[in-house]
Amino acid sequence: MIQRFQPGPRMSGAVKANGFVFLAGQVADDTSEPVAGQTRQVLAKIDQLLAEAGTDKTRILSANIWLSDISTFADMNSVWDAWVPQGNTPARATVEAKLATPAYTVEIAVIALA
Amino acid sequence: MIQRFQPGPRMSGAVKANGFVFLAGQVADDTSEPVAGQTRQVLAKIDQLLAEAGTDKTRILSANIWLSDISTFADMNSVWDAWVPQGNTPARATVEAKLATPAYTVEIAVIALA
Amino acid sequence: MIQRFQPGPRMSGAVKANGFVFLAGQVADDTSEPVAGQTRQVLAKIDQLLAEAGTDKTRILSANIWLSDISTFADMNSVWDAWVPQGNTPARATVEAKLATPAYTVEIAVIALA
Repeated sequence: MIQRFQPGPRMSGAVKANGFVFLAGQVADDTSEPVAGQTRQVLAKIDQLLAEAGTDKTRILSANIWLSDISTFADMNSVWDAWVPQGNTPARATVEAKLATPAYTVEIAVIALA
Repeated sequence: MIQRFQPGPRMSGAVKANGFVFLAGQVADDTSEPVAGQTRQVLAKIDQLLAEAGTDKTRILSANIWLSDISTFADMNSVWDAWVPQGNTPARATVEAKLATPAYTVEIAVIALA
Repeated sequence: MIQRFQPGPRMSGAVKANGFVFLAGQVADDTSEPVAGQTRQVLAKIDQLLAEAGTDKTRILSANIWLSDISTFADMNSVWDAWVPQGNTPARATVEAKLATPAYTVEIAVIALA
C-alpha cells in the first residue's frame, strides 16, 4: 500500500510505502532570507512532513542537499548541525546545483524509516 | 534476492529488491529533440523499465530530475504533468546539472514500489 | 531498528534499516590525486562501509555519482568499470556538480541491500 501526503497534481510532499517515507525536495517559502534562514524553513517543513507521515527526524536514513552556491556550505551546516539529532544522524550528500528558481538557495530531500 | 533488468557492464537499467525497484537515470535516445521531446522519450523508457520490473507509474515513490538548463523547467513540467498519474504523484526533486553529454537536456531517475 | 555506522555529529557514514543500507556521499581523502585516483579512493571507502554494514558491492542497488567536471566522465568510468561486479551492476545516475570543496573531483553515494 502506498500513502501520499500533501499530494498535488505534479508531485506529493511525502510518499510512504513498505516501511519507508520519501520526501519531495523541500524549499523555503520566504526566499527573502539568506541560506541559513532558508535552511531553517526547509528543516521545519521536513519536520512537519515527517510528522504527517507518522515519523520524525530521529528516523531519517538519508539526505540529499543542494545548495545554489556551495560557498554557503558552512551557513547551511550551522543550521543543520543544530537540528540534526545527535546519535541519529543520517547518511548525507551535499552538492551545488541551480534550483527551480534563483531565489531558492537550498533544497533538501530525505528518506526516513516509517 | 536481487533482480536486474537491462543489465550492462557498467550499470543496470533497473534493479529490484525487497519490494522496491530502482531505475538508472534515463536519458533520450534522439537528442536532436528539445527538452520537451527528450522528456517524452525519457518517460517512455521509464514506463518500459517499470513494466519489465512488473510495476508501473502509479507506484513511483520518488523521482530525481536533472535539467541541463533550469530555464527549461516549464517545458519539462508540461510533459511531466500530462504523464504523471493524478492521485498518484511521487515525491520529486528537480535541479540543474550538466549531464553525461551536452546533447542530453534532461535525465530522470525514479524509485518505485514493486 | 536503525543501525548507524561511522556516526558523526553531522552525518553517518552508513545507515541500515529495513533490509537496506544507505551510504553517505563518499569523497577522497587524498585530493592531490586526479579523478581516477579519487574514484579509486572513493570506491575503497564504499567497499569498507558496505563491509561494516555486513554487505558488499555485489548487492548495490543504486548509485549516484557527482563529478565536479563532467569531462572526466571517461576517467571515472575506467575505474568504476574495473570495480563494479559483472552481472551485478546497480542502477546509476551521473551528473556534474560542484562538491563541498573544489579539491573534490568525484563523490559517490550508494544504496545497497543489507
